[in-house]
Amino acid sequence: MIKLYYAPHTCSLASHIALEEAGAEYSTARIDFAREEQRSPDCLAINPKGRVPAMVTERGILTETPAMLAFIAQSFPRAHLAPLDDPFAFAQVQAFNSYLCSTLHVAHAHRMRGHRWADDAAAIAEMRRKVPEAVGACYDLIERKMLKQPWVMGETYTICDPYLFTLAQWMEADGVDPARLPKVRDHRRRMSERPAVRKAIAQEFA
Amino acid sequence: MIKLYYAPHTCSLASHIALEEAGAEYSTARIDFAREEQRSPDCLAINPKGRVPAMVTERGILTETPAMLAFIAQSFPRAHLAPLDDPFAFAQVQAFNSYLCSTLHVAHAHRMRGHRWADDAAAIAEMRRKVPEAVGACYDLIERKMLKQPWVMGETYTICDPYLFTLAQWMEADGVDPARLPKVRDHRRRMSERPAVRKAIAQEFA
Repeated sequence: MIKLYYAPHTCSLASHIALEEAGAEYSTARIDFAREEQRSPDCLAINPKGRVPAMVTERGILTETPAMLAFIAQSFPRAHLAPLDDPFAFAQVQAFNSYLCSTLHVAHAHRMRGHRWADDAAAIAEMRRKVPEAVGACYDLIERKMLKQPWVMGETYTICDPYLFTLAQWMEADGVDPARLPKVRDHRRRMSERPAVRKAIAQEFA
Repeated sequence: MIKLYYAPHTCSLASHIALEEAGAEYSTARIDFAREEQRSPDCLAINPKGRVPAMVTERGILTETPAMLAFIAQSFPRAHLAPLDDPFAFAQVQAFNSYLCSTLHVAHAHRMRGHRWADDAAAIAEMRRKVPEAVGACYDLIERKMLKQPWVMGETYTICDPYLFTLAQWMEADGVDPARLPKVRDHRRRMSERPAVRKAIAQEFA
């Protein structure tokens, strides 16, 4: 059985939702970021990166949201969470998720995790100041060029949807006004109505 | 036929090598970063992100290195560039590549692309100052925990190998001493001897 290591308000929610959508049997383990539990010896033994998410499977441990999402889609093919038999369509799904992890999430991380890339307090503050612009530019591109409707890839719900929904939770705190992004805003509302999404969120905040 | 949009000294080399390893028929189009050609209307029509790589296929355009590498592996299965029939092993490959794109490449980007996350010159200089430490921490993790031998995944060469090799080209300029990373250094040397790698590099610098 799969065990998901997660922390509330992090990108682990994407894999949590995907496990629910897949109908997977899984358990969860909550990591307390306030106590920096992700850097405890026990957690570092699971994930030496000292982050979430991590997923313990019967074959071993997986990390990195895009890889975990594709794994969930491939492991539960009857849930149809990705176009598994079409390399081009699958690559489009993966390209979207790769953009989220390497560009949107990274832009967001400069608000709270600037210490990864600078030590000086003024530099960290300057990064934080630019977050609304940098994150906003990502969402503008998503809104204009990437997000189809009703789901990210169009008519078919995929592993792109829980990932975008998860990162979009942080938009207001990042200083980006959802009112200027009607497709992203509607996608978020649509996602929030899905039973799998409600269940995953309810579990994380129970 | 596939057409790869690339620029020398960028991560597009990873896909270039993978196309060679796959025995793919492909052509290349060089983007002149010195003239900011990636932001020209023609290039933005191919890739609205204004970056490389992009790959034009008969089905449409793909971007994002991890997605392109998986696409190449799936499109040319006889080249055995990824464990396509094993979702867990495939996820391990993808997790490695996701770490490269979202953490190692991002740490590196703070040396030359700090303007993405700050406007203030002092903040940009401070990010640049920390690059050896941030990039070095990624390589320490790769050396200690992630890189098997002789290839990233062990005995089998995969799409992880050209990607790590590509980013490792930047190590010295990032202020990281390869001497402290014997596995990464040996991997780079081993890669540099492969005919596909030599051919891709020769094409890019012709």
